[in-house]
Amino acid sequence: MPNPTAAMLVIGDEILSGRTRDANMHYLAGELARVGIDLEEVRIVSDKAPRIVAALNALRGGYDHVFTSGGIGPTHDDITADAVAAAFGVGIGVRDDARAILAAHYQRTGLELNAARLRMARIPDGAALIDNPVSSAPGFSLGNVHVMAGVPAVFQAMVASVLPGLQGGAALYSQTLCIRRGEGEIAGALSDLARAHPNVSIGSYPFQRDGAFAVNVVVRGADKAQVDAVMVALCAQFPEAVA
Amino acid sequence: MPNPTAAMLVIGDEILSGRTRDANMHYLAGELARVGIDLEEVRIVSDKAPRIVAALNALRGGYDHVFTSGGIGPTHDDITADAVAAAFGVGIGVRDDARAILAAHYQRTGLELNAARLRMARIPDGAALIDNPVSSAPGFSLGNVHVMAGVPAVFQAMVASVLPGLQGGAALYSQTLCIRRGEGEIAGALSDLARAHPNVSIGSYPFQRDGAFAVNVVVRGADKAQVDAVMVALCAQFPEAVA
Repeated sequence: MPNPTAAMLVIGDEILSGRTRDANMHYLAGELARVGIDLEEVRIVSDKAPRIVAALNALRGGYDHVFTSGGIGPTHDDITADAVAAAFGVGIGVRDDARAILAAHYQRTGLELNAARLRMARIPDGAALIDNPVSSAPGFSLGNVHVMAGVPAVFQAMVASVLPGLQGGAALYSQTLCIRRGEGEIAGALSDLARAHPNVSIGSYPFQRDGAFAVNVVVRGADKAQVDAVMVALCAQFPEAVA
Repeated sequence: MPNPTAAMLVIGDEILSGRTRDANMHYLAGELARVGIDLEEVRIVSDKAPRIVAALNALRGGYDHVFTSGGIGPTHDDITADAVAAAFGVGIGVRDDARAILAAHYQRTGLELNAARLRMARIPDGAALIDNPVSSAPGFSLGNVHVMAGVPAVFQAMVASVLPGLQGGAALYSQTLCIRRGEGEIAGALSDLARAHPNVSIGSYPFQRDGAFAVNVVVRGADKAQVDAVMVALCAQFPEAVA
């Protein structure tokens, strides 16, 4: 059975403007690989409702799961929850259980649950809350869309809350070999191996170090024996390679 | 006149698998902001032709420019040039000027221009080559799509080759203020300011440091006077803020 598929939607003006370098995508990619959910697409869109709605509807129809990051805080530019409600065509409002979580948090910290903070209790109808052990304000899952915060510490905590409830697949088995040759010199051999092992993915990632060309060859597949067979063949052809 | 718009398409199995953290997106975002081209969307797709073709066709119709990164090397998994040709419905083949560039490069370096390396001279019909001062193998522009390498040093050199030929717009003027309060405490003031200054974008990016909450408020706009007016108002309301 093929692994479940996933896409990520990053709501991120600050990434598109070049101000911030994304961290959540890289984190989620690693976590999904670990549980055998294949991340197949990422989109980053600006904080504009029509863009978010269009991307959500394209992705939730095309993949088993969609994970979003960003735009669920208390300020005027936090419009993700409303965009999700619009994409699903459902209502949205302050929900009692979310309000109770926030009220307890602000009572503990001695801060006021003002109107801005109460915005974080606005949850689309029919959604399930995602626990946020870092700063309390919850994310939510609606259908196959999991809506999480953009602050990396909170995003990571929410991923940890969501993933155990999802059906995973086979974690890909992966091996990397560093070959200190130009990519053009090993391309023929890689191509032959790829043809001979259609269930194994062979990726070629060139780099330069100390003025010399080298390639990281990444061999991935669900079947360890097949991946190992490709690695053995590669090591035989390029005995100088370093695993 | 509004700025030209842009999208980026990253062809990146290695990013989706969590193996590599993207660097090119962050670089391109910064360079485009500098010349006044608004990066409005980024998509990352895997090295599968149908995904690349679909994303290319969606993006090139929706934005003034599309920049791609990755998949133009000599190995079997380098399929971007073919996908671009398919997306535009044009032919592709080894082109004499591209072959001459590669031949000169490999003669200089004493390496063989073998069949794999010659793949890098396959250029879709009608494209203009993009200069690659780092490793010679060219990128290309076809219509509004600019196709560049994934290796960061090469990607950056190609961006430097392409950008001077494009019509830019007004570089956004941007100011950042760090306010050491919770986001929920300043949200009301930000919202009022955003309403009063519709041509200015006010972004709110919370973070935690040394256990305390703080917010970077980023104020952006084409008109310096309006951005400065918002900054003055913010500083008046939050005198402890640090620019």
